Amino acid sequence: MTRLLIKNGNFVTMDEQLPQFQGWMAIEGNRIAALGQGAAPEHEVAIATELMDGSGLLFMPGLVNTHGHAAMSLLRGLADDLALQDWLQNHMWPTEAKFTGDDVYWGSSLAAAEMIKSGTTSFVDMYDHMHRVAEVVEQSGLRASLTRGVIGLCPEDVQNAKLAEAIQFAKDWHGAADGRISVMISPHAPYTCPPDYILKFVEAAHDLDLPMHTHMSETLAEVEQNVRDYGYRPVEHLDRLGMFSRPTLVAHAVHLTDEEIALLAERKVAVSHNPVSNLKLASGVARVPDLLKAGVTVALGTDSAASNNNLDLFQEISMAALLHKGVSGDPTVIPANEALRMGTVYGAQAIGLGGVTGQLKAGMKADFIALSIAKPHYVPHTDYISHLAYASRGSDVAHVWVDGKQLLKDGQLLTLDEEKILAEAERCFQRLRG
Amino acid sequence: MTRLLIKNGNFVTMDEQLPQFQGWMAIEGNRIAALGQGAAPEHEVAIATELMDGSGLLFMPGLVNTHGHAAMSLLRGLADDLALQDWLQNHMWPTEAKFTGDDVYWGSSLAAAEMIKSGTTSFVDMYDHMHRVAEVVEQSGLRASLTRGVIGLCPEDVQNAKLAEAIQFAKDWHGAADGRISVMISPHAPYTCPPDYILKFVEAAHDLDLPMHTHMSETLAEVEQNVRDYGYRPVEHLDRLGMFSRPTLVAHAVHLTDEEIALLAERKVAVSHNPVSNLKLASGVARVPDLLKAGVTVALGTDSAASNNNLDLFQEISMAALLHKGVSGDPTVIPANEALRMGTVYGAQAIGLGGVTGQLKAGMKADFIALSIAKPHYVPHTDYISHLAYASRGSDVAHVWVDGKQLLKDGQLLTLDEEKILAEAERCFQRLRG
Repeated sequence: MTRLLIKNGNFVTMDEQLPQFQGWMAIEGNRIAALGQGAAPEHEVAIATELMDGSGLLFMPGLVNTHGHAAMSLLRGLADDLALQDWLQNHMWPTEAKFTGDDVYWGSSLAAAEMIKSGTTSFVDMYDHMHRVAEVVEQSGLRASLTRGVIGLCPEDVQNAKLAEAIQFAKDWHGAADGRISVMISPHAPYTCPPDYILKFVEAAHDLDLPMHTHMSETLAEVEQNVRDYGYRPVEHLDRLGMFSRPTLVAHAVHLTDEEIALLAERKVAVSHNPVSNLKLASGVARVPDLLKAGVTVALGTDSAASNNNLDLFQEISMAALLHKGVSGDPTVIPANEALRMGTVYGAQAIGLGGVTGQLKAGMKADFIALSIAKPHYVPHTDYISHLAYASRGSDVAHVWVDGKQLLKDGQLLTLDEEKILAEAERCFQRLRG
Repeated sequence: MTRLLIKNGNFVTMDEQLPQFQGWMAIEGNRIAALGQGAAPEHEVAIATELMDGSGLLFMPGLVNTHGHAAMSLLRGLADDLALQDWLQNHMWPTEAKFTGDDVYWGSSLAAAEMIKSGTTSFVDMYDHMHRVAEVVEQSGLRASLTRGVIGLCPEDVQNAKLAEAIQFAKDWHGAADGRISVMISPHAPYTCPPDYILKFVEAAHDLDLPMHTHMSETLAEVEQNVRDYGYRPVEHLDRLGMFSRPTLVAHAVHLTDEEIALLAERKVAVSHNPVSNLKLASGVARVPDLLKAGVTVALGTDSAASNNNLDLFQEISMAALLHKGVSGDPTVIPANEALRMGTVYGAQAIGLGGVTGQLKAGMKADFIALSIAKPHYVPHTDYISHLAYASRGSDVAHVWVDGKQLLKDGQLLTLDEEKILAEAERCFQRLRG
């Protein structure tokens, strides 16, 4: 088995036992075998099959993007600065209605290329034509939690067909790509799926023993509609439908009461906080400091490039660290280390991969990235946790490994043909717009 | 005289006559001579002394950073996530008290390197040892508006010496470096300068015919103190002291009443909005949509790297576009084009350089940048104004010109020794901390 030894690197681990150090790390096959401070021990040098000089590089766990719609990268910049309903009804939905499997494949490839180049190693994707997204995951080497996001505003036979499709996708792909693909079960949102339809998804998730993912309480209007239509705010509504009897990840969760936060904590529901998308669509500012204080696992997501407009998770990390200070008036909330944990270890926990990815630790999967730090914005060498949270950006990422395999080397993609992807994505967009 | 002809480029001009196009631009000496859509005219090709292929590049005006303290880049990451007074009194001020001219030189060089590499071509700097900052401007080729920021909490003889120093600096350096340096007159803030001392600065600004720059209404506590100490909120206080009889740029302006906004508009006072620093220090969220609506010129600034923690003005542009949507609940405020104008043309106007820099337009100084756009986050090619405001980052900048001279080529600094600067800045920091 291959054993890569990285020497002379700077490491930020997200492991509280040894948060940051200068030293070495050994990767055997697809796992982190060992790591430590200072010079690599002689026996590590002796058993290594490959050596890498980590000088000028900062190694950290790969980032986990816990909410998105990769294929919508085809819609980046198509329509900005519009009211939400105008944006959705007149721009997003009419264009998405034309999406073929081919569009989903190339749009997701575009997203995969961008995510790898900016340091994301695991991502959540909720969309349609999901087998084409799974192909992209297989080919790219990324780790992903995939889910067919089903909108249930349709006749019962169409509803049933969509549910069957979501179940079949789970059966076909959960555990595929050497275990890099896992699957979640997703009614799109309480406002797009009637209660009896959501019940069927909960049942399917139990039958398949899979976690659930949904959009929840993104806008105030949607919360008010939920109360009007069903008599409860979304958290209680979903809880009554049994969703939280499954491990669940909810995206957005912007508009929450104290009682809802307490219930999310009690039910161990994880939240995917998408600060850039929530700001751009003017959805509001999620109560993240309160969620964290209540013990809720809060991870980060970009949402799609149509409402972001990039997939650079470092921007979400710095945004999370900055935004909640300014809005709460307390400069001590979400300190640098907590923001980084939201982008790594909490992200892994949110998608059921705690202990698998999101930290540099012996025994965990070798999902890690190396940033080039011989740059002005990393000087002086005060505190790399601070620099990562506040000063860095995805373009600092030079190398990426997932499951022990290198996907990016010196900024160049090793598993994807970037030039072809950019051209094909542009071609798809021109056809969709034409 | 040299005449550079750039062909086959994508241009975003910040000139409403021709906002974006594919075409060509000619630079003669230090000015933009001509530009236009499509293929370059034959006579342009004939008179060019140098040709550049602009394929795969996006040209736009250089960015204008309207508030900062360059030398404080030495304090990047020294202390984060602290309450403001703890941060200032226990970390910033004690370290800054040890700053020598040498520290200011290398800290400002570090900032200049970072600013050039991320597309800033003009910057405002308010600090001490300003002749050392001016040296950095001379050497780097940047354009700058420099000002000795004077804190007046000291005996009268020290006050007088500081004022004399600020005046001498203006006499020595205003118009220097081939006109790339201009000077402003700066009492540091109403809370650090007694009223009678501010009056002397106003008088000096009149005598020297120079604009003024100061910190104003950054925190709520400082506004309340102003009312307690002097009976007025800061805007009326400074207006009564005659400051606004000079062209004035105020930094921050976070806490304003409707009446103050109206008075700033009436007095044509420009505001440097520093959203990242304001969030990180939990100062609050400035009322930028209201300021713009009232007709106030609102530009962008990074503040220092100690409270940011980088000098990437593209982050301020996207932050301005995003933050105010989410906080106001209106996704149409500060659209992409307005955010870009804040980072370019409004910035130039805020420092008295409207018509000189901040736009690509025949007759203006050749301060422009080229971004490499053969990257996933610039695909599809929907709308480059959107991509610049929402998807781009300073690291996309490949080439930079100021006053017709190229300062960055393929990401490499041409006027500064980056390796030496990083090493010297690190050395300065270690000594300051030691």
